[in-house]
Amino acid sequence: MTLDRSSLIPALRNVATRLRIDSVKSTSEAGSGHPTTCCSAADVMAALFFAEMRFDPHEPHNPDADRFVLSKGHAAPILYAAWAEAGAFDRAELMNLRKIDSDLEGHPTPRLPFVDVATGSLGQGICAAIGSALNARRVKSDYRTYVLLGDGETAEGSVWEAADTAGYDKLDSLCGITDVNALGQSRPTMWQHDMDALANRWRAFGWHAIVIDGHDLAAILDALGEARRTKGRPTMILARTIKGKGVSFVEGKDGWHGKAFKKGEELDRALAELEKQFVPAPVGVNLPAQIPKPAARPRVVESAKPVAAPSYKRGDETATREAYGVALTKLGEADPRVVALDADVKNSTFSDKFEKLFPDRFYENFIAEQVMVGAAMGLAARGAIPFPSTFACFLSRAYDFIRMAAISNVGIKMAGSHAGVSIGEDGPSQMALEDLAMCRAEPNITVLYPCDGVSTEKLVALMAYHPGPAYMRTSRPKTPVIYDNNETFSIGGLKVLRESSSDAATIVGAGVTVFEALKAHDQLKASGVNVRVIDLYSVQPIDAAGLVAAGKASGGVIVTVEDHYAAGGIGDAVAEAVAPAGLTVKRLAVREIPRSGKPEELLDRFGISARHIVDAVRSVIPALK
Amino acid sequence: MTLDRSSLIPALRNVATRLRIDSVKSTSEAGSGHPTTCCSAADVMAALFFAEMRFDPHEPHNPDADRFVLSKGHAAPILYAAWAEAGAFDRAELMNLRKIDSDLEGHPTPRLPFVDVATGSLGQGICAAIGSALNARRVKSDYRTYVLLGDGETAEGSVWEAADTAGYDKLDSLCGITDVNALGQSRPTMWQHDMDALANRWRAFGWHAIVIDGHDLAAILDALGEARRTKGRPTMILARTIKGKGVSFVEGKDGWHGKAFKKGEELDRALAELEKQFVPAPVGVNLPAQIPKPAARPRVVESAKPVAAPSYKRGDETATREAYGVALTKLGEADPRVVALDADVKNSTFSDKFEKLFPDRFYENFIAEQVMVGAAMGLAARGAIPFPSTFACFLSRAYDFIRMAAISNVGIKMAGSHAGVSIGEDGPSQMALEDLAMCRAEPNITVLYPCDGVSTEKLVALMAYHPGPAYMRTSRPKTPVIYDNNETFSIGGLKVLRESSSDAATIVGAGVTVFEALKAHDQLKASGVNVRVIDLYSVQPIDAAGLVAAGKASGGVIVTVEDHYAAGGIGDAVAEAVAPAGLTVKRLAVREIPRSGKPEELLDRFGISARHIVDAVRSVIPALK
Repeated sequence: MTLDRSSLIPALRNVATRLRIDSVKSTSEAGSGHPTTCCSAADVMAALFFAEMRFDPHEPHNPDADRFVLSKGHAAPILYAAWAEAGAFDRAELMNLRKIDSDLEGHPTPRLPFVDVATGSLGQGICAAIGSALNARRVKSDYRTYVLLGDGETAEGSVWEAADTAGYDKLDSLCGITDVNALGQSRPTMWQHDMDALANRWRAFGWHAIVIDGHDLAAILDALGEARRTKGRPTMILARTIKGKGVSFVEGKDGWHGKAFKKGEELDRALAELEKQFVPAPVGVNLPAQIPKPAARPRVVESAKPVAAPSYKRGDETATREAYGVALTKLGEADPRVVALDADVKNSTFSDKFEKLFPDRFYENFIAEQVMVGAAMGLAARGAIPFPSTFACFLSRAYDFIRMAAISNVGIKMAGSHAGVSIGEDGPSQMALEDLAMCRAEPNITVLYPCDGVSTEKLVALMAYHPGPAYMRTSRPKTPVIYDNNETFSIGGLKVLRESSSDAATIVGAGVTVFEALKAHDQLKASGVNVRVIDLYSVQPIDAAGLVAAGKASGGVIVTVEDHYAAGGIGDAVAEAVAPAGLTVKRLAVREIPRSGKPEELLDRFGISARHIVDAVRSVIPALK
Repeated sequence: MTLDRSSLIPALRNVATRLRIDSVKSTSEAGSGHPTTCCSAADVMAALFFAEMRFDPHEPHNPDADRFVLSKGHAAPILYAAWAEAGAFDRAELMNLRKIDSDLEGHPTPRLPFVDVATGSLGQGICAAIGSALNARRVKSDYRTYVLLGDGETAEGSVWEAADTAGYDKLDSLCGITDVNALGQSRPTMWQHDMDALANRWRAFGWHAIVIDGHDLAAILDALGEARRTKGRPTMILARTIKGKGVSFVEGKDGWHGKAFKKGEELDRALAELEKQFVPAPVGVNLPAQIPKPAARPRVVESAKPVAAPSYKRGDETATREAYGVALTKLGEADPRVVALDADVKNSTFSDKFEKLFPDRFYENFIAEQVMVGAAMGLAARGAIPFPSTFACFLSRAYDFIRMAAISNVGIKMAGSHAGVSIGEDGPSQMALEDLAMCRAEPNITVLYPCDGVSTEKLVALMAYHPGPAYMRTSRPKTPVIYDNNETFSIGGLKVLRESSSDAATIVGAGVTVFEALKAHDQLKASGVNVRVIDLYSVQPIDAAGLVAAGKASGGVIVTVEDHYAAGGIGDAVAEAVAPAGLTVKRLAVREIPRSGKPEELLDRFGISARHIVDAVRSVIPALK
C-alpha cells in the first residue's frame, strides 16, 4: 500500500461513507441494531481495513493475517459492512442482518469465518485479542492484532486486567482503538470526552496512548503507523468521535443507542445526508483490491505425538490436581500447540509443572481470571490448545467469559482445582460447589471429573482433542489410584467399579465421593446388601444408557453423591439421563452454605460421607425401609 | 484519642507484635493459614484499629461505627486477633481458628458479628466497601470505611471497577490501604515494590494516593490522617511492606504463602524472635480501652409503609421487565431503605423509573457488573435493601460476587432482564440461558420468575423483605396480564392456571413459556385432551407438594418448558421436587447455542413453543403414544 495520502484519504472517506450507509440501511431493514454506534467508528474501520491491516478477505483464517476483534460487538453491522466492502461476501447479504437464517447475527459469532470469538458482552474482545497476540509470539508470526473498544466498555474491570497483562507481557503487536463517542446506552459515559482522563489510565497501565480526532483520517493513519512502530509495549489509540457521526439529527444525541432509523422519512433523511458525503473518487484507486496480503511463509503443521502413558501403581496416593499437572507436562511434550495459563495459583493447581518444562508456552495472568479465560479464547481461536486453570471456585469470576466461549465454541480446556467441601479448613470462599452447574448449563461444554491419577491423565489427553470447550474438576485431597495404567476412558463414559448379580441399588459418585461410595459399598456388603458403584467421570456428555442399565439391574434404585451443591450437578445430570426410563434418583449433595473444618468432618457434616450413603441406600431400598 | 505520639507509637508497636504473635500461633495450631500475609499487615492493622477507627468492640453493628473490610481475606487470623485485642472476644478463642465448631473460619464470614461480608475471593471487599461508603451518605452518617487489599489482589479487574466508581462518586469517606508485600501465592506480584507504578494507577483513576513504608507507624498514622482530611475523592494508601515481617527467616521470601509454621522448632524460633520485638510499655496507655466510640446520635428507625397495589387490567400487555421498574418505584415510595443499582442498561431493565423518582437512592455503576453487585452487598450489610439490575446474562459477569453474597447471606435483590431466546434479534450474547442454573445452585438464593405484570409487582415486594439474597428473572417481550390485582403470591408458591378432573398431563412453565403452555392447553383441549397448566413463579424454593399433587392428578405425566438451557433450570428443579413421589419429568428447554431471529421463530426453532409442548404431551401420555 504505497498510495499517496492525497489519493488514499478521499478513497477512505468514501469507504467510511459506504460503511455508514450499509450500517444504517441494514439495521433499518432488520428493524433493530445500533447504527449510531457504527457511525462513530466508521472512519477508524475504513482506515484499519483498507489502509493498515494485512489480510486476505477470501482466507480470513490465514495464520499470518492481521486480526481484528470487535470488542464493542454491538457495532456488528459495520464489521459485516467492512468485510463485504473487502469482498469477503456479497454486499446484498447485509440486508439479511439479524434474520434467523443469516449468520450476520445481532452480535458477531464465529459462525462467520472472519470472526475469531463471539463478542457482545463488553470487555471480552480485548482479552481475546491478548490471546491472539500471545499466539503470534508462540508461532513466531509477525501478524498484528487490532481491537476496537467502546469508551463505555472500558468501565469493565476485565479491560484493566487485559491492560495489565498486555503491558506486563510487552505485547507490542497489539493495538487497541477506543471509539470514544462519549455516549453509553442509557446516558453519557463516565468520562465522556475527557480524553486525558482516559489516556492517563492506559499510560498508568504501561501502554503507549495516542489521543486523536477519530474522524480525521490522516490522524487515524498517523496513529496506526505510530502504533506499528512502537516497540516494547502495546498501544491504545483514543479516538474522540461523535456517536451517529454523519447523520446530523442524531449526532452526539443521547437516546439513540440501539435504535434503527425508521423506514420511510427518518431513514430517507439519514441516507440523503450520508449520500452527500461522498467525495470525488480518486482515479485508479481500488482499496479492496489493494489490501496487502499476509507475507507468504512456509506453513508449519503442528501435530501431536502420542501422549506418554500414566505410570502409577494401584493404591498410590495422589491428588487429581497433581495428576493434572503431570498430565499437562506429558501433553505439552507431545504437542507444541498445548499452552497453559495461570492466575497465580500454579503451585496449587500444579500447572507449575508445565511452566518448569515449557516456560515459553506458559502465561501468567496473576490474579485475573477473566483475562486468563479470555486470552485462552483468543489462543484457541488461533490454533493453540490452551489450558487455563485456577481454583474451581474462581472460574466463577470468568463465568461470562465461559458463556461466551460456549457461544464461540472455542476449544478452551479449563481445569478447576479445590472442588467442594473436601478442601477443608480454608472455608466456603475457596470451595467450588457450583462449578458443575455453571459448566453443565452450557450445552456444548464437556464436563469431566476424575477420581484418581490414571483417569485424570487419560481424561486430560482426551479433553485436549475433543472439539469445543471443556472443563475438568480436580480435587485437593490425595486419593488412591484405582485404575490400571492401561485402562481406557472416553468422553461420555463411566466406570462400573463394583457390581454383583444381586445389587439392590446403584451408587453414583465422582471425584472424592467415589471413595465414600466404595466405603459405603463395603459397609453394606458386610451387612448383606450388595450395591453397584459407578464412577461418573464424564458428567457431560453422560452415559445415559449405562446409567439406565445399572439402575434397572439394581431394582431401579439410584443414589447420587457429590461434593457440590444439590442443584445443577451430578444428581440433576443423572436424573435427567434416567428419567426417560421412568427411574428417579435420590440425591446426596451439599445443601447449605458450608464452613471451615477438616475435610472428613465436612464430608460428614454436609451429608456426603459413606455413612450418609449407607443411610440413603437403606432408606430407599423397599425391603430395608 | 489525644495520646502523644511518643506514647502512642510504642503502644501500637506492641499491639502489632501481639497481632503477629497471635497470627503465627493460631495458624500453627490450626496447621494451615497465612501467617506471613498477616505479618506484613500487622502495623497497618494496629494503627487502624487502635489509633484511627471509631467503633465499639461490643457493638460492631453500630450504624455510625467506622467499617473495616478485609479485602485480602486470607489475612483473617490478624483480623480476628485485632478484634480480640480490642476486647470483642476472649483471645484464647483464637486458638480455635479453622476448627469446625468455631466461627473463626479460614476466611472471614458474617457468622462473626464484626464481619459485614465474606471475603476470600480477592477484589471483592473493596466493592463491598463502596457499598458501605454509599450507605454512609444515604443515612447521613459520618462513619468512614476502611478496606485493606493485597497488592497481588489489585490485578483483579473488579478492583478497577471499584476504583472508577469510588472516584466518580467522590467517596471521600472511603480509605483503602494496599499491603504491598510484593509476593503473591506462587511468585512475586506483577509490579512488586514499584510503588510508583501502583500509585500512578490509583491517581489515574481519580484517587488520592499516598506511598508510605508500611512498617513505619508514624507514616501510617500520618497517611490515615491525610486520608481523613482529603475531600472530594477517596484515598489509597500504598504501604510498602515485607511479607513475613518480624520473622527473619521468612521475611520477603517466596514460597511461604499460605504456610503455617510447623509446631516445634520452627514455630518456637518464630515466636522467640517476635517476643523480642516488644518495647517498654508506655505508662498509662491502654489502647483497647481508649478506642473512640461512634458519636451518639438519634437512631433513625427506617420502616416501611404498605406497597401500593398493582393496577393492571387482565389482558393488558406489559413486559415483566417494565413491571419490575414500576414495582421498584412503588417499593421505593414505601420504604426509604430501598435503593437501586444499574450498569448502564436502566432504560432496558426499567430501573430508570426508580432513578427518576429517587435519584439519591440510585447508583449508576456504568458498565461494571462486579462492582454493582459488590456495592449492593455492602449496602445490604449496612441496612439498605439494594436492587442491582442488568441484563440477566451479564449477571454472570458477577457470579463470583453472587457466590460470595450467598456465603455472606446478605440481602441483595438482583433482577436480570432479557432472559432467554425470547429476546430475539440481538442474539446469544445477550440471552440469559444459564441464569436460573447459576442462582439455583446457591442453596440460599431465592429465585423468582414472574410471567405478568401483577405477579412481578407482588414478587418484587415479597423478595424485598424475604431474608437473604434473591434473584428475579424478567423478560423482554410484552405478555398479557393474567392475574387480578388482588391475587396473592408467596415465596415457594405456584399457580395452577388450568385444571380439570380429567387432566392427562401437567405442563409447568414460567415467564414467557406460561403463554406457550396456555396455547398448548387450548390446542390439546380442542383435540379432546385436558392438561393442567402451572405457573412456577417461585423456582427456588419450590412448591414440591403442589407439583406432586398436580403430577399425581394428571396421570403422573409432567412436562416442563423453559426459556433456559436444559441443565440446572426449571426442569431440574421440578424433577428433584417430584422424584420422592416416584415421578419423572419430560423437559423442554434450549439444548444448543441459539442465534439471532424473531422471538417467536426462536421459541419454535429451539423447541419451547406451544407446538413442541403439544408434541411432548402426546409423546408421553401412554394412551396417545
